[in-house]
Amino acid sequence: MFRKTFGFLVQIDRNISNVHSRSNSNVAFIGLGQMGARMVENLIKNGQKPRVYDIIPAAASTIQGATPCSSPEEAVDGADIIITMLPNGQIVKDTVSRILKAVPKNAILCDSSTTGPQVARELSKVAKDSNIRFLDTPVSGGVVGAQAGTLCFMVGGSQKDCQEAEPVLLKMGKKVLYCGESGAGQITKLCNNLILGVTMIGTCEAMNLGVKLGLDPKLLTDVVNVSTGRSWSSDTYNPVPGVMENVPASKNYEGGFSVELIAKDLGLASDAALSINAPIPLAAMSHQLFRTLMTYHLGKKDFGVVYKFLEGQALKQ
Amino acid sequence: MFRKTFGFLVQIDRNISNVHSRSNSNVAFIGLGQMGARMVENLIKNGQKPRVYDIIPAAASTIQGATPCSSPEEAVDGADIIITMLPNGQIVKDTVSRILKAVPKNAILCDSSTTGPQVARELSKVAKDSNIRFLDTPVSGGVVGAQAGTLCFMVGGSQKDCQEAEPVLLKMGKKVLYCGESGAGQITKLCNNLILGVTMIGTCEAMNLGVKLGLDPKLLTDVVNVSTGRSWSSDTYNPVPGVMENVPASKNYEGGFSVELIAKDLGLASDAALSINAPIPLAAMSHQLFRTLMTYHLGKKDFGVVYKFLEGQALKQ
Amino acid sequence: MFRKTFGFLVQIDRNISNVHSRSNSNVAFIGLGQMGARMVENLIKNGQKPRVYDIIPAAASTIQGATPCSSPEEAVDGADIIITMLPNGQIVKDTVSRILKAVPKNAILCDSSTTGPQVARELSKVAKDSNIRFLDTPVSGGVVGAQAGTLCFMVGGSQKDCQEAEPVLLKMGKKVLYCGESGAGQITKLCNNLILGVTMIGTCEAMNLGVKLGLDPKLLTDVVNVSTGRSWSSDTYNPVPGVMENVPASKNYEGGFSVELIAKDLGLASDAALSINAPIPLAAMSHQLFRTLMTYHLGKKDFGVVYKFLEGQALKQ
Amino acid sequence: MFRKTFGFLVQIDRNISNVHSRSNSNVAFIGLGQMGARMVENLIKNGQKPRVYDIIPAAASTIQGATPCSSPEEAVDGADIIITMLPNGQIVKDTVSRILKAVPKNAILCDSSTTGPQVARELSKVAKDSNIRFLDTPVSGGVVGAQAGTLCFMVGGSQKDCQEAEPVLLKMGKKVLYCGESGAGQITKLCNNLILGVTMIGTCEAMNLGVKLGLDPKLLTDVVNVSTGRSWSSDTYNPVPGVMENVPASKNYEGGFSVELIAKDLGLASDAALSINAPIPLAAMSHQLFRTLMTYHLGKKDFGVVYKFLEGQALKQ
Repeated sequence: MFRKTFGFLVQIDRNISNVHSRSNSNVAFIGLGQMGARMVENLIKNGQKPRVYDIIPAAASTIQGATPCSSPEEAVDGADIIITMLPNGQIVKDTVSRILKAVPKNAILCDSSTTGPQVARELSKVAKDSNIRFLDTPVSGGVVGAQAGTLCFMVGGSQKDCQEAEPVLLKMGKKVLYCGESGAGQITKLCNNLILGVTMIGTCEAMNLGVKLGLDPKLLTDVVNVSTGRSWSSDTYNPVPGVMENVPASKNYEGGFSVELIAKDLGLASDAALSINAPIPLAAMSHQLFRTLMTYHLGKKDFGVVYKFLEGQALKQ
Repeated sequence: MFRKTFGFLVQIDRNISNVHSRSNSNVAFIGLGQMGARMVENLIKNGQKPRVYDIIPAAASTIQGATPCSSPEEAVDGADIIITMLPNGQIVKDTVSRILKAVPKNAILCDSSTTGPQVARELSKVAKDSNIRFLDTPVSGGVVGAQAGTLCFMVGGSQKDCQEAEPVLLKMGKKVLYCGESGAGQITKLCNNLILGVTMIGTCEAMNLGVKLGLDPKLLTDVVNVSTGRSWSSDTYNPVPGVMENVPASKNYEGGFSVELIAKDLGLASDAALSINAPIPLAAMSHQLFRTLMTYHLGKKDFGVVYKFLEGQALKQ
Repeated sequence: MFRKTFGFLVQIDRNISNVHSRSNSNVAFIGLGQMGARMVENLIKNGQKPRVYDIIPAAASTIQGATPCSSPEEAVDGADIIITMLPNGQIVKDTVSRILKAVPKNAILCDSSTTGPQVARELSKVAKDSNIRFLDTPVSGGVVGAQAGTLCFMVGGSQKDCQEAEPVLLKMGKKVLYCGESGAGQITKLCNNLILGVTMIGTCEAMNLGVKLGLDPKLLTDVVNVSTGRSWSSDTYNPVPGVMENVPASKNYEGGFSVELIAKDLGLASDAALSINAPIPLAAMSHQLFRTLMTYHLGKKDFGVVYKFLEGQALKQ
Repeated sequence: MFRKTFGFLVQIDRNISNVHSRSNSNVAFIGLGQMGARMVENLIKNGQKPRVYDIIPAAASTIQGATPCSSPEEAVDGADIIITMLPNGQIVKDTVSRILKAVPKNAILCDSSTTGPQVARELSKVAKDSNIRFLDTPVSGGVVGAQAGTLCFMVGGSQKDCQEAEPVLLKMGKKVLYCGESGAGQITKLCNNLILGVTMIGTCEAMNLGVKLGLDPKLLTDVVNVSTGRSWSSDTYNPVPGVMENVPASKNYEGGFSVELIAKDLGLASDAALSINAPIPLAAMSHQLFRTLMTYHLGKKDFGVVYKFLEGQALKQ
């Protein structure tokens, strides 16, 4: 899927020997939900023995090969790299403020939660005040990517710190994209997902229109995919049941990127847009549409379910 | 940019020897505007000597290698393939009704204008009643594609007729995509352009948001293009000045796909959606946004100028 | 509900003796659907003996006091005032072109159908070419107003013709509002209904938001109705069940102004806006929302049913 | 403008003798901006001698008849009723937490700032923990109403406390509307202003459409105001220049309810809607539209300036 070589990736490769290798780092991991548990399993597969913590003790104790800890402070003891993967910004802030004193100086704290740029910047400052390095490292790829170890990390903070953390991150993912200073990882993720939400709905509108007017959806998809309407939403994750195999649309919209997660990301993008007064008309409307689906109890379905909504088939009670 | 082989293209290739070859057809071409004149030049380059007509006589008489005609009836005299490329559906309908008696029986009438499916179906019926074969053959690629001979033809009508017309169409373009029965070419074009309009605006919203929050637009583009936000609008036609060379955004939004043309297509898509009550919320909002730009005299600019509008820089008077 | 005296109404009253009185006119009425049949009944109650026609013969023959006719040409024979009340502009155009030769010179043709300004202007011209006077006289008030004889007529055309037709129109309604030259009645109706559609949805959004946050809907309505959010949609036709008696919202959204009729009017308003490139972003979005409800088979419900849609209760299958 | 007697207002009147009269209360007022300074002047006109504080000392010292204080703690000393009128929720929270210990027990703290329901509920709890009574008392009426003493207070909290504070509030306004428990005043204000923002834009769309199609704006307004499109935005605050005298639209959109204030309120309404997942599609689009105007430096203009934006005349640089 890569079509060009990134300057900064090359840069990272060239300099990798100049920085302290973290591939055998002591890793702490806090937050073992749907994403975190799978990420930890990949760390273990790739030779790490992370110390792990979750607010639900059983989540930590059942992971083979990890050291379960009874508090986040205990988990970060002796760590070089600390990764947090938590539900929202407030929980990340509470957790970081709790562990700050226990984190070894010179450790790198990587927050892979999706929190928005403001939280990332606050945390970076708080960490710096305690002489701890902080990176915002949100991911794309979802639960499927977390399980397969194919996540993409979008990183904000010091580029040197990014290089240092990269070997550990690559044990859980396939790409580490350096995006700029603190908060840039979060911003990049929100911008990408803003496009994603809008493009998916636009694709659903056109596919529904074409099918209702008599087109074969596979044929329409084939044409769009060699034309100017082409996108990831049409060529990799088509929302029409039966057009592609092994995508959520062909599995009753189960197991993909949920409506409530894209709605969460569009909400964070809205907050970010509000902070600098950037108009986002289509993203705002997309946000409303996804939230309307949540009102009808479709929040757990893959976000391509917009196709069924437009078709007049989605909203049963 | 092709990523897969299309079943129907293969089909066309296999059967091509079974049908009467039209590569040395007598061609008539009606409508020599920005698009039509360039398409005719490619026909001539590829060995045709078309009979041509335009309502403005000079448009016909100045094309070297063509036979200028003083009426559309004269142009179609003796033609095997007749191509119309006209501003809107009403003009196409008026022209077709005028020439019907003069068109040789068994000729194929290819309308490459963008008219919407209803006009295409009406014309198909009218032509059939006169024993003339009709194909709707709208194009993508714009003026640039017309000049370069790289247009893509989306074809509705009989598949056999499509195969017969294909050799001539390929003298003006690089792809002939058979889309289904009469009107299917028009529907396919509208569906594609609906996605295009929505995706472009979504991309502009995200790029503006990211840049205003401090991201480098090239870096953001690089990440989006390997992520789920990827689309033709981001990886081939990026709307931010300076991110890509040789796209309208880097040439003051001159010379591309104009705001008023995408607005026209979204208007036709709205009519088609209305006819079958298919909701198109984002396309409707996109239509409004493009029309707002027209209100501010930006209708001739490339449609990526939405980026400047969102940035707060577009609307001068 | 009147708060000011209209100059033009006073004008009409003052001059009424100067023009030929039409209160004992010979009236023809074409189109006896939900609206037309009730309007005719009020004509009869008020002393007229109209000649009537409908494409369904039984619709004409069952109205006591009217003269049923077997063709529109027969109906207009000898008429001074001809009123048409038909489903859409195409049918009006077909009907008018059919009856033109049969209409007595100097008669006034009043089209009360909702057709948009373009059709009104075309008809005005066609009528004028046959020396027949034409007024566009669309109504507000719906089936309830038609039955009660409380319709409001919005009139475009010659003001003198309006004065002449007024006595007859007032037998079916309570207000005749002169709006300007030909088409102005249609434009006025579309503008009013555009506001109506948008305001109703905004009111539904706020009422749903307030109620879900714990407010009493009657109390919220009382405050809004003495505040800047006040409108006909809140103080006369409140969309929340139980807030007001005798409105559709309190009768399961039965019997009011249907979703499909407001959607039709917003579609005509969109066409009119497109013709002069006037942006209507909220009206366009409202149009989409009403059409989404139609996709879920709610087209016959009163348009306040948007409240139930937002509440998460409307869309059963 | 009142059309009905409110049960709860009557209730307040009947019981007013049962509660301690506060018409001669000791009043403290914190926050002397555009709104606050004018409210204080009306308190003084009506016989109060308030103790006042603002972060800018000159704001307090220049009000004749008030006692300027050098800290908020000093201002609340001995007060029965404390009124805060501050720019946003965070400042209110900071101020309240600072003064809590200095506020006399049994005093009533009235926050007239627009903060949203969540802040109101937090403050109510914080106050209660210190045995202080709290009311959220946001206002409608703007700077004009503050100056004229015609504000409307929307009150959340204990109804008995509302009755007790009412005599003081009525020295700055003409209406005190009890809306329900803590936060209800804020919710009511946001709901009202949500309708207001949407209805104003819808009215602007229709007026622009009608005028561009040739209608006289006064005539169109007259018809709308006796029809179903009637609202405060059309009959009291018409956005078309020249239709009404003494409204901002006729004074170059100066001196009214600013674009940035309605945008702020729509932002708070969005947050509230997000908290309970209530869809607000038109309000979200309205929010975007007002924010787009801010991008073009129109944030200080009256919000009816949307009319000029749609007309194609607003956005100069």
